[in-house]
Amino acid sequence: MNHPLMPGPHPVSTDTLFDVAPLSVHARARHVQTLLDAKTKPLGALGQLEALAVQMACVLDTDVPQLIEPQLVVFAADHGLARQGVSAYPSEVTAQMVDNMLRGGAAVSVLGRLNGLALTVADCGVARDFVAQPGLHNAKVKGCEHGTADSSLGPAMQVEQCAQAMHQGAALVDHLPGNVLLLGEMGIGNTSAASLLMQRLTGLPLAQCVGRGTGLDDAGLARKLATLERVLARHAQALEPLDTLAAFGGLEIATMTGAVLRAARQRRIIVVDGFITTAAVAVAAALAPAVLSRCIFAHSSAESGHARWLAQLGVRPVLDLGLRLGEGSGAALVWPMLKAACALLNDMASFASAGVSERT
Amino acid sequence: MNHPLMPGPHPVSTDTLFDVAPLSVHARARHVQTLLDAKTKPLGALGQLEALAVQMACVLDTDVPQLIEPQLVVFAADHGLARQGVSAYPSEVTAQMVDNMLRGGAAVSVLGRLNGLALTVADCGVARDFVAQPGLHNAKVKGCEHGTADSSLGPAMQVEQCAQAMHQGAALVDHLPGNVLLLGEMGIGNTSAASLLMQRLTGLPLAQCVGRGTGLDDAGLARKLATLERVLARHAQALEPLDTLAAFGGLEIATMTGAVLRAARQRRIIVVDGFITTAAVAVAAALAPAVLSRCIFAHSSAESGHARWLAQLGVRPVLDLGLRLGEGSGAALVWPMLKAACALLNDMASFASAGVSERT
Repeated sequence: MNHPLMPGPHPVSTDTLFDVAPLSVHARARHVQTLLDAKTKPLGALGQLEALAVQMACVLDTDVPQLIEPQLVVFAADHGLARQGVSAYPSEVTAQMVDNMLRGGAAVSVLGRLNGLALTVADCGVARDFVAQPGLHNAKVKGCEHGTADSSLGPAMQVEQCAQAMHQGAALVDHLPGNVLLLGEMGIGNTSAASLLMQRLTGLPLAQCVGRGTGLDDAGLARKLATLERVLARHAQALEPLDTLAAFGGLEIATMTGAVLRAARQRRIIVVDGFITTAAVAVAAALAPAVLSRCIFAHSSAESGHARWLAQLGVRPVLDLGLRLGEGSGAALVWPMLKAACALLNDMASFASAGVSERT
Repeated sequence: MNHPLMPGPHPVSTDTLFDVAPLSVHARARHVQTLLDAKTKPLGALGQLEALAVQMACVLDTDVPQLIEPQLVVFAADHGLARQGVSAYPSEVTAQMVDNMLRGGAAVSVLGRLNGLALTVADCGVARDFVAQPGLHNAKVKGCEHGTADSSLGPAMQVEQCAQAMHQGAALVDHLPGNVLLLGEMGIGNTSAASLLMQRLTGLPLAQCVGRGTGLDDAGLARKLATLERVLARHAQALEPLDTLAAFGGLEIATMTGAVLRAARQRRIIVVDGFITTAAVAVAAALAPAVLSRCIFAHSSAESGHARWLAQLGVRPVLDLGLRLGEGSGAALVWPMLKAACALLNDMASFASAGVSERT
């Protein structure tokens, strides 16, 4: 891949970060659908669960998909742009919520526990130094240990910092067991970064990419939109996915993008949560389109723009519960559906084995 | 209650089957929402899960709802009307699927096992006599042990048989532990009965109430619609809910209606599956409107008419996965969401307890 981020001698030019092969799955998909069609149910009666079962079988390259040691990773970082008042909450909440997640009190902690998901919080640039502790992974980036720069004044990251974040995301995945990666995030201000990425990647008008985040009122939303218009204009030259990512941030999105690329290469199932995790996947897919074939989109969030982005990516979310929390809460909530889809494929009787008459 | 089904000396006139009190829950609902609003998340960010948590707290009359020993009951019966060719499958499939459920090979068996749901199959009039066995509950009705009569030729049941079925449903619930009843059903031909009930209860044109069931093609659908038009015309005098139920059937719907009424009276949470279970709930709600406050509608099925009926009842389903299997499969699939909603209410930290800053 030829990109300014990756000049000849740079480490990223020689590794396999963007090397995600398309899945050759037509035969597998057809065969698994045949298996499903033989189960004791009308054809297609399990709806979207059948599509999920087929997809998981294809990603894992087996007719009997088993989901093993699912890993929920919350990528957390702060955003310099938050100083411009784009969020309803102060930046200190990012670190406080990391504490809360590690202590087990956050929504994602509760849902992870309930569903048997291993939870890792990756500090990709939170505005505080944490004591090393179980469940916390240090993924701070040199020079932006406490968050991105203010993208209204300059690039959120240097391209080398962006590359480092991506590599650290890939390295994190390398250290995780299992065959499913569930994506979560935490970062006050990160709907702004995601909206900017959405605009630049999709070309849609900015207003269609911007929402209320954690709960801005009308005046707050207007202020956010005006601020993001300025940021967009300042970085008019950032058109390639990686330049865009460096210009707008954030560190958690860049780290997650690297994690998604590596997980996709390793044929892990990737469970995408809401608007911000979709941003990371969209950047990854812009770099390596085959990433999308590994992704299950957990839900359509209430954040304005998310449903539109999913449609633009040509993907269909599983749930639509009006969630707008992030953290990986939607990914954790969809987990039982994925287990169900696999169990139905693996454990249901067929018409023949059960002695049930087929249709007349 | 004054109804021809219940003349003075008849057992149903003196019992409490239709006695379902409205929940007085305004104070409780407000308080639980206050608890949710104090959790470490933006206001309302858990979307529909917050509404579910509030509802379950209200039904169970507690601020800390615990779901105990959930009971999934599949009400099964055959339909005389099936002889008119309204289904893509032969009637013998009902009994074969009961076998399959009891042996653990049906979709509902797999999903019940996966989710820790106790599964009971109630034989409300399947066209076969079963050997007594664990998991099977005999709820056959005297005179229609092997299914309803053909409703295109006369009433599906006598009113006394309908009343007996309802009482047996109530008695079944009395014998089940736990505080959650999940509804399932099996019965070749039962989308026809449900469509007829929908038409009579809602007043919508029949064509808006009729769908492809287990998978009729266009010609089959046209035949089904024409047959159901004839059945409707034959029972033009059946206007009250119980007369309608007796006229159209089926035995599994009548038994389920009784079960729903009793479960509602006992303040159990009732998890409604698809089109046929919605029919039972709609009849129950026509008799005792407070039933609906206890019901969680698991999903909007792909059976034409279901979404319309849910809208007409003023309720909002949780999932929309294109399912059209019945059996209680959707109810079992939504179960983890209900557990999640309770766990979030009970286990999440508050801003105060976690030391997280509130919005600016």
